[in-house]
Amino acid sequence: MAQQPSKGLADVVAAATALSDIDGRIGRLSYRGYDISQLAGAATFEEIAYLLQRGAQPSAAELAAYHAEIMAGRVLGSLVSEDLTRIAHDQEPMEALRTLVSLASAGDPDKDSNAADANLRKAARLTALQPVLVAAYEAARNARDVPEPDPQLSLAGNFLLQVTGKRPAERSAEVLDSCLVLHADHTMNASTFAARVCAATLSDMHSAVVAALGTLKGPLHGGANEQVMRTLEEIAKNAQADPVDAAGTEVAARLSRGEKIMGFGHRVYKVEDPRATHLRAMAAELAAASGDDTYYRMSRRMEETVLAEKGLYPNVDFFAATVYHYLGIPTDLFTPVFSVSRMAGWTAHVIEQHADNRLIRPDSEYIGQAGLTWVPLAAR
Amino acid sequence: MAQQPSKGLADVVAAATALSDIDGRIGRLSYRGYDISQLAGAATFEEIAYLLQRGAQPSAAELAAYHAEIMAGRVLGSLVSEDLTRIAHDQEPMEALRTLVSLASAGDPDKDSNAADANLRKAARLTALQPVLVAAYEAARNARDVPEPDPQLSLAGNFLLQVTGKRPAERSAEVLDSCLVLHADHTMNASTFAARVCAATLSDMHSAVVAALGTLKGPLHGGANEQVMRTLEEIAKNAQADPVDAAGTEVAARLSRGEKIMGFGHRVYKVEDPRATHLRAMAAELAAASGDDTYYRMSRRMEETVLAEKGLYPNVDFFAATVYHYLGIPTDLFTPVFSVSRMAGWTAHVIEQHADNRLIRPDSEYIGQAGLTWVPLAAR
Repeated sequence: MAQQPSKGLADVVAAATALSDIDGRIGRLSYRGYDISQLAGAATFEEIAYLLQRGAQPSAAELAAYHAEIMAGRVLGSLVSEDLTRIAHDQEPMEALRTLVSLASAGDPDKDSNAADANLRKAARLTALQPVLVAAYEAARNARDVPEPDPQLSLAGNFLLQVTGKRPAERSAEVLDSCLVLHADHTMNASTFAARVCAATLSDMHSAVVAALGTLKGPLHGGANEQVMRTLEEIAKNAQADPVDAAGTEVAARLSRGEKIMGFGHRVYKVEDPRATHLRAMAAELAAASGDDTYYRMSRRMEETVLAEKGLYPNVDFFAATVYHYLGIPTDLFTPVFSVSRMAGWTAHVIEQHADNRLIRPDSEYIGQAGLTWVPLAAR
Repeated sequence: MAQQPSKGLADVVAAATALSDIDGRIGRLSYRGYDISQLAGAATFEEIAYLLQRGAQPSAAELAAYHAEIMAGRVLGSLVSEDLTRIAHDQEPMEALRTLVSLASAGDPDKDSNAADANLRKAARLTALQPVLVAAYEAARNARDVPEPDPQLSLAGNFLLQVTGKRPAERSAEVLDSCLVLHADHTMNASTFAARVCAATLSDMHSAVVAALGTLKGPLHGGANEQVMRTLEEIAKNAQADPVDAAGTEVAARLSRGEKIMGFGHRVYKVEDPRATHLRAMAAELAAASGDDTYYRMSRRMEETVLAEKGLYPNVDFFAATVYHYLGIPTDLFTPVFSVSRMAGWTAHVIEQHADNRLIRPDSEYIGQAGLTWVPLAAR
């Protein structure tokens, strides 16, 4: 017999995982047993992708081999290359990435296998490919070439190099690397859950990741970081006087009208999202270094206002927006940057799902009419 | 606090829906209150798509207007047209459809809106487009043109015309129409659920349907009908004597080795899947008319064997395979045919999800290690 419905599956356990864990009461997120507060600034994104996908910290030799896999995976297949320019002109970033990753399966020699070794190889390739796709899309719509990657740079460094077309400052690459570490996995978030529902039919990793990309696109999920930046830009543009004061006033007005402010609150955390703590510090550092900390100070005022009025804390999307802005990433690529990181988690979840699979097929509660008689068209 | 885990969410209510209902104890499936046993052979697929997407039986005028929307929606956008040939050569059918539907959003004027009216228009367009994509893919990989659709033919009739390149017999179009009616919706099946998880982030209908296509691809879901046909073909090819006897012997041998036979059993039905009842009758009719009923008789023997050995009944995929075979549809397009029908249900579920949305974000049970200390790379 079916259990009582829980709208949105809140508090319903949908899967077991050894990948990440959240203690929402104390605001702790850990990856395979490592608290992210130990990892931010101390581990590289490649180490975290390896940890999630392969189960343990890599040795120096394992990390070097994984880095070589990542470098080898930075290849656009022929189908992607040939269609890229048209797609970059005709589709928005997340729409295009959904298409491009779907196209990319054509070139993957392991595309039809869900075997453990094939999945490990595909996970590394997809992790390598995602930043290249985002950068290639940005270059294509601006009709410029993508610079060659530098094997001495991290995945984050090469992404900044290729997406902006300019060699990044060392500290910028470090900050983005920390952002990628913080976004890599987050238990049964909607896009990861979509990937697992897909993979549980024994469909393939590319299909699962394409499902996840379309899911991350939504403004209630990954799309929120872009919405945060748009709100900041809009308030700054319309401010009559001090934009920081305007941020507080405008947010209070929106809240009093019952509007949702993107970037605040999370179903799982009862206290501050630990990722927000780290991202706030990085936003402060980059703002100070930039010489114009307006968006950071506006963000702080918004944060104070929402906490005072609604008791809600900023989530991962709120300060990520200002960090990405100060790193020079175009606003409509903020959600794609999220996907560059979350690819590590999505692929690890597909590996985990395939390793101990059961079809994910829930019940529904029927709330419509019953016992109707079909009237033939001629008699209607 | 999280509830106890139910692996695969079996018997967990994930959503409320007014679209379809299953009574698994008596083997009844209904769409918006109409038992499918009233509908098969009595309603057209267009009427059922309308019923699911728009809530009630159409009047003659409403159906004519919907039919006009379907005819107008049979258009490949420029992005799809230009990339079709390469995709048809480089991607397998479900892989290609995942890509092609993702490309198709580029040409949809409503792609960025989740408003009720925009969703209704997109649902009709996607329902119209899916058979055209399948037929265009088949034509492209065979380097032939797609015949012009005939406004006098049903969606099923035009699909057969375009996918085979030949005008279908009237009865063939009627049989396929009934198949499409029977596959149109099925409560919280995995692909529909993936679509709702995606849509619940307020992502768009194309993203949700792309997620569903990748999910349907899996052999534990839509991919099963193709596997059924491959099993029949393989047994017939290897049979030393009577292929019908070989079907019984081979299936018994596989079962005794603990292997799964595709096309049998269903999480929700405790008795025969009512769709199988109708599909069996159509398979018998087409087999008799074809002059070679071998696959049908093999199917019957397999069915008897699995029931005797395992107590499992055939599901929707089992007799659909022989029906599609006798209709002249290539085996690797069986799952795409399923998608042509289920598009009606997927789009209706997205409409329903957006109309009363809450993010679908379950919990997970953490089963990994805890409290580990990150060792810096240099110290490993």
